[in-house]
Amino acid sequence: MRFVTYRANGQASYGLLRGTDIVDLASRLGAQAPTLRALIETGRAAELVAPHAQAAADHQLGQVELLPVIPDPSLIACIGHNYEAHRIETGREVVGNPSVFLRIPDSLQGADQPLLMPRESDRFDYEGELAIVIGKGGRRIPEAEAWDHVFGVSCFNDGSVRDYQRHTAQFIPGKNFPLTGSFGPALVTLDELPADRVVELTTRLNGEVMQNAKTDQLIFPIPRLIAYISTWATLRPGDVIVTGTPGGVGDKRNPQRFMKDGEVVEVEISSVGLLRNVVKKEA
Amino acid sequence: MRFVTYRANGQASYGLLRGTDIVDLASRLGAQAPTLRALIETGRAAELVAPHAQAAADHQLGQVELLPVIPDPSLIACIGHNYEAHRIETGREVVGNPSVFLRIPDSLQGADQPLLMPRESDRFDYEGELAIVIGKGGRRIPEAEAWDHVFGVSCFNDGSVRDYQRHTAQFIPGKNFPLTGSFGPALVTLDELPADRVVELTTRLNGEVMQNAKTDQLIFPIPRLIAYISTWATLRPGDVIVTGTPGGVGDKRNPQRFMKDGEVVEVEISSVGLLRNVVKKEA
Repeated sequence: MRFVTYRANGQASYGLLRGTDIVDLASRLGAQAPTLRALIETGRAAELVAPHAQAAADHQLGQVELLPVIPDPSLIACIGHNYEAHRIETGREVVGNPSVFLRIPDSLQGADQPLLMPRESDRFDYEGELAIVIGKGGRRIPEAEAWDHVFGVSCFNDGSVRDYQRHTAQFIPGKNFPLTGSFGPALVTLDELPADRVVELTTRLNGEVMQNAKTDQLIFPIPRLIAYISTWATLRPGDVIVTGTPGGVGDKRNPQRFMKDGEVVEVEISSVGLLRNVVKKEA
Repeated sequence: MRFVTYRANGQASYGLLRGTDIVDLASRLGAQAPTLRALIETGRAAELVAPHAQAAADHQLGQVELLPVIPDPSLIACIGHNYEAHRIETGREVVGNPSVFLRIPDSLQGADQPLLMPRESDRFDYEGELAIVIGKGGRRIPEAEAWDHVFGVSCFNDGSVRDYQRHTAQFIPGKNFPLTGSFGPALVTLDELPADRVVELTTRLNGEVMQNAKTDQLIFPIPRLIAYISTWATLRPGDVIVTGTPGGVGDKRNPQRFMKDGEVVEVEISSVGLLRNVVKKEA
């Protein structure tokens, strides 16, 4: 199944995505599951959605405003330097544990909506990543059980304001300007992935490939990330873990290549989707 | 005015603190202001509270379970290395901007409740700090107007699991284990502070003074912190900025001095209050 969160006729909603058809679920499930996060929290998403799977479309993709697939996670944990080529290009040491920082929900935009380059900086960079969304919450989740806690995956652009990211050793300021990242277009359940769950990620800027990797190249694989983060944080349904970006970020190219007003950035992940945003320089 | 958030008879509530008297405000203000954060959001706290200021006490301090003064902030931004003695003891470079990391609400405990040393570590350290709570939200708040956006202040213990804090350059894991920090006992409005708003902070472990400083020693003063953070984050009523810890943390003492099961840690701030917690090693 594929789910989208969107705004139509001024109203936030979410639905099942079937090709380009959207079946509104917020109106059909009502108080039982008013948001996608709430649907995940029920632990019975498949069962609740099944009666509506063949309903006539309420909207078409392209005619609604997509929002971040989960607009209100309790935690958005992002991983740094989790592909070897990116670790090397950023000059980071080999470490025994994942590097984790947090994004706040305000920092995220939906697919096909403008990514906002803040007026304070011209060093606005892409980072294509695979995001996973927690289904069943937990603490101290063993690696062997980690996939049982995943509801699905989505594309993510961990858009970064590089000068603010480097003001000190802590990345937070450069990762949290409003609407600088994006998350979508759809949340895709695990049954839509290949059996080994390895997917290929490609980031393009104006059509040119800037990053490409497969998720079996992650230094810390997804079960390890879930085990590590749940050591110190109680994971909840709808929480997001953003698994890290491959080599090829604009900041580490020679010459450097930052995003400019009007440019198109795409994060495409096989079996998952294509997350497209146009960069808009803030007035 | 002084406000506390607490649980009594199994019910979360908040109230006005008058000496040791607590006047329940959640029941009196109802849907108008069901939580302390909601009261701040009204922008009319003084006006709404005034009719109840002389009401008979509903509870006594010491007979309720205190919770973090704001249990549900949308943002808890903590500042690193913001007193010169602590910057020097941690070997950090002089930087032009504040170092900012985030805590999640799960990581915080109320006053007089146990601070939880996780079973994964014995390197559990105190950090006494002054916290400010945002009254009027905003973005890109000028330094000259920053104090107009502050509702009040409280004591904060930015309890830190030092080995997890140092797994990588990002502090997040060591700052976010559940119930490792504390925030309280009361939220104190600015009119209770001296005219220059300079207060003195003392951290004690089992009665021994471990940290002592005045807030006019902050490298980046409070208006600068508000201006900087609001450059990249939209501040909302009830958001928390934790202003940094003085020199004398246990991790940088010779010999090192970490907190142990059963020890008493206190953060006392003149005109503000005394935040006391007993350390409890997790089973």
